[in-house]
Amino acid sequence: MLHQRHPQLNRHGELIHLLSTEGLPRDILTHILDTASNFVSVNDREVKKVPLLRGKSVFNLFFENSTRTRTTFEIAAKRLSADVINLDIARSSASKGESLLDTIANLSAMAADIFVVRHSESGAPFLIAKHVAPHVHVINAGDGRHAHPTQGLLDAYTIGHYKGGFSNLTVAIVGDVLHSRVARSDIHALTTLGCAEVRVVGPKTLVPADMAAMGVRVCHTLQEGLRDADVVIMLRLQNERMSGALLPSSQEFFKSFGLTPERLQWAKPDAIVMHPGPINRGVEIDSAVADSRQSVILPQVTFGIAVRMAVMSIVAGNEA
Amino acid sequence: MLHQRHPQLNRHGELIHLLSTEGLPRDILTHILDTASNFVSVNDREVKKVPLLRGKSVFNLFFENSTRTRTTFEIAAKRLSADVINLDIARSSASKGESLLDTIANLSAMAADIFVVRHSESGAPFLIAKHVAPHVHVINAGDGRHAHPTQGLLDAYTIGHYKGGFSNLTVAIVGDVLHSRVARSDIHALTTLGCAEVRVVGPKTLVPADMAAMGVRVCHTLQEGLRDADVVIMLRLQNERMSGALLPSSQEFFKSFGLTPERLQWAKPDAIVMHPGPINRGVEIDSAVADSRQSVILPQVTFGIAVRMAVMSIVAGNEA
Amino acid sequence: MLHQRHPQLNRHGELIHLLSTEGLPRDILTHILDTASNFVSVNDREVKKVPLLRGKSVFNLFFENSTRTRTTFEIAAKRLSADVINLDIARSSASKGESLLDTIANLSAMAADIFVVRHSESGAPFLIAKHVAPHVHVINAGDGRHAHPTQGLLDAYTIGHYKGGFSNLTVAIVGDVLHSRVARSDIHALTTLGCAEVRVVGPKTLVPADMAAMGVRVCHTLQEGLRDADVVIMLRLQNERMSGALLPSSQEFFKSFGLTPERLQWAKPDAIVMHPGPINRGVEIDSAVADSRQSVILPQVTFGIAVRMAVMSIVAGNEA
Repeated sequence: MLHQRHPQLNRHGELIHLLSTEGLPRDILTHILDTASNFVSVNDREVKKVPLLRGKSVFNLFFENSTRTRTTFEIAAKRLSADVINLDIARSSASKGESLLDTIANLSAMAADIFVVRHSESGAPFLIAKHVAPHVHVINAGDGRHAHPTQGLLDAYTIGHYKGGFSNLTVAIVGDVLHSRVARSDIHALTTLGCAEVRVVGPKTLVPADMAAMGVRVCHTLQEGLRDADVVIMLRLQNERMSGALLPSSQEFFKSFGLTPERLQWAKPDAIVMHPGPINRGVEIDSAVADSRQSVILPQVTFGIAVRMAVMSIVAGNEA
Repeated sequence: MLHQRHPQLNRHGELIHLLSTEGLPRDILTHILDTASNFVSVNDREVKKVPLLRGKSVFNLFFENSTRTRTTFEIAAKRLSADVINLDIARSSASKGESLLDTIANLSAMAADIFVVRHSESGAPFLIAKHVAPHVHVINAGDGRHAHPTQGLLDAYTIGHYKGGFSNLTVAIVGDVLHSRVARSDIHALTTLGCAEVRVVGPKTLVPADMAAMGVRVCHTLQEGLRDADVVIMLRLQNERMSGALLPSSQEFFKSFGLTPERLQWAKPDAIVMHPGPINRGVEIDSAVADSRQSVILPQVTFGIAVRMAVMSIVAGNEA
Repeated sequence: MLHQRHPQLNRHGELIHLLSTEGLPRDILTHILDTASNFVSVNDREVKKVPLLRGKSVFNLFFENSTRTRTTFEIAAKRLSADVINLDIARSSASKGESLLDTIANLSAMAADIFVVRHSESGAPFLIAKHVAPHVHVINAGDGRHAHPTQGLLDAYTIGHYKGGFSNLTVAIVGDVLHSRVARSDIHALTTLGCAEVRVVGPKTLVPADMAAMGVRVCHTLQEGLRDADVVIMLRLQNERMSGALLPSSQEFFKSFGLTPERLQWAKPDAIVMHPGPINRGVEIDSAVADSRQSVILPQVTFGIAVRMAVMSIVAGNEA
């Protein structure tokens, strides 16, 4: 029962999988961020490598292609000295009619230690974690619209780094919140870490009023959303997902919710601007903002490696 | 002349390539299985790595795509500390009109140590082994309908592990034996290792009577084939290969040769069930059998890593 | 200003990027070749590995696919103990509309050390080197028709190895010089290293008279071009690039410029024959020549690994 509510934790309350930031206790979030902070310095060294995962096998199982995210996990694992196996799942046995769970059972039997899973269907990493052998740890690298927990954690790390904490902060998450697994993972991480206010900002089609149930403030104008914000997280407008008519056009979106230098002045003067990337210049964010001193988009990428190293080293150290 | 009959052995009778289990002396088969048994324990350790192939370069040359088999060789090589290069041959110079032997000569010149070769044409690994520089060792990872020797060896390892030896055993290989390189490699390995009886079981279109020339017993009913068997090896029904009309349908096949719990009772009570994977549930094997305690399908995968480590470390240690 | 003329060198005149052999001082060329000569012996050893780039991250950014060249860089980097990340750029964020420079900035932020860049557009590696963070070194692995400097250097290494120097040599470069980045990189390297005469040989459509401005002798017949040559470099006839009508046909080309054993006798008796590969047997080169004792095409491949190890280790050791 306890296990069902916390599929990510063992009976000692230790992290054995990372599937979602939802429901993760604050001390675990803090432990991940503290561990990441050590790895930030590793990434600055001449020899960017520690032997923590030497002789471990990390499998990148990307059922949905994402070169960028796969690359960050691959680098993180290699800097921990793990052996990394990239599986081009789209071309593998999956296409020979083998079921997801048979594929997973087979890879487990190869004495895998960590599965990094990206899947277009929400919940796939949970399903895998539920059926995997006890020696395997599952890390969700993005599942459908559901969760992208390492992105949520690296966003939290970035905010903590630049703002020195969370308790007095107002964070605005702007854009297509409805379809965004990043937004969901940010919201759960940031509210647990004690941010004073998390706002979701966008048109009603992309930010329905019932999102307030997640403990956030819903704003339908950018001016209201940015007012006195300490942190502005712009989401990527995923044109490829909006086959429907939720938006008139990306130009229209930019007119109302695109972040320009002028509008950024509604936020606090020292507000930081974040984005999970890849950015659409002139769609959700003006180049002058993306390249400004307030932008911490590239540091997010840097911290993302350290956060992924932290997550992998933590789960690998705990027994199911 | 001797060299022509044993292209896998050097003049001291040591294994320098693994192309087929056919014609391999029993002491070499035994040596591979004994070596694999040491590597099984390596795969159980915290640090699943030994330095035996440190500084060696293993090239995965998969002219025919097979993510699963490629992955097992990649893991095996990395656990031996080799550098592994995966070549996406379909997109490489081969497509620029370069001949197979020119491609091979070029890769040899990069100071390769081991080529792991998968090819849709029977005999391609032999051709390569014949023309390769003396410092290169060739391992056949499956060629056409001809051979899949590491599968044959891992099947033998699995049988030896669960049955403690070979001499009194009856082994039934069931299904599309005609098209199966796995069946052929199993037959050669198991008869050399001294199995009492190897049976091939299937309809006449897939198991012609003249297979008896291979030293096996041919059975055209499942009941006859399974009677008192110690080991049942179910082959994958390769729908994609059966464009012709060798079979009415896969449902028809299951009706006559699919392995159900009831039919498995024809075999000995402690019979083990094997399958090279990926399995087609409900086509050649019932889920209740695949997931039963008699099934050793996942241990086969585990032992497969150790057997491939054994083969790579042995050939790399012998000079042409 | 100085920096604009020598984008590859830092203010101490040390190599920090390798973008082109054009404008590279002779002492730098010599330093690369001398360093490569040490790595040739590493590639001959039992353990083909040195720890020079341990803990460094090398990214293979192949915007244009080339399995062969990518492989040589991957092997070179792994033998230097670097972590290698292969990016399938065609399928990455680039295709999500992200700009080249945003892609590069993101990868830099992952604490990359070396970018190996192949691009169909001339100048792309220069653009990248200009915008990259100071800790990143860029190596051009071929850009459009412009340059392929590691090929130029490995050709120079091969010539130096077989001829003991450059000062008295006549080198003939034969074929589609106009479209060849290899030819251009060869010409710049060999003239700087002091070859007595570099000739470019081919029909007027592929070898325009104004190439003489590059300090080479232009020859429009093979006989004139090969006369008393010490080195013959045959270029690949890139059928795939010749959509226009620069040539009647490849048969026609072979009739006038294909290298046969008879024609090779026009060169010096101890002339060596080179080719960047993959060769088109019977198009630009006769099999009897390609496989002859004068051919050093495979040693070129071997030396290419050592030259790439040299370039990577040198640039990684110098600060921007």
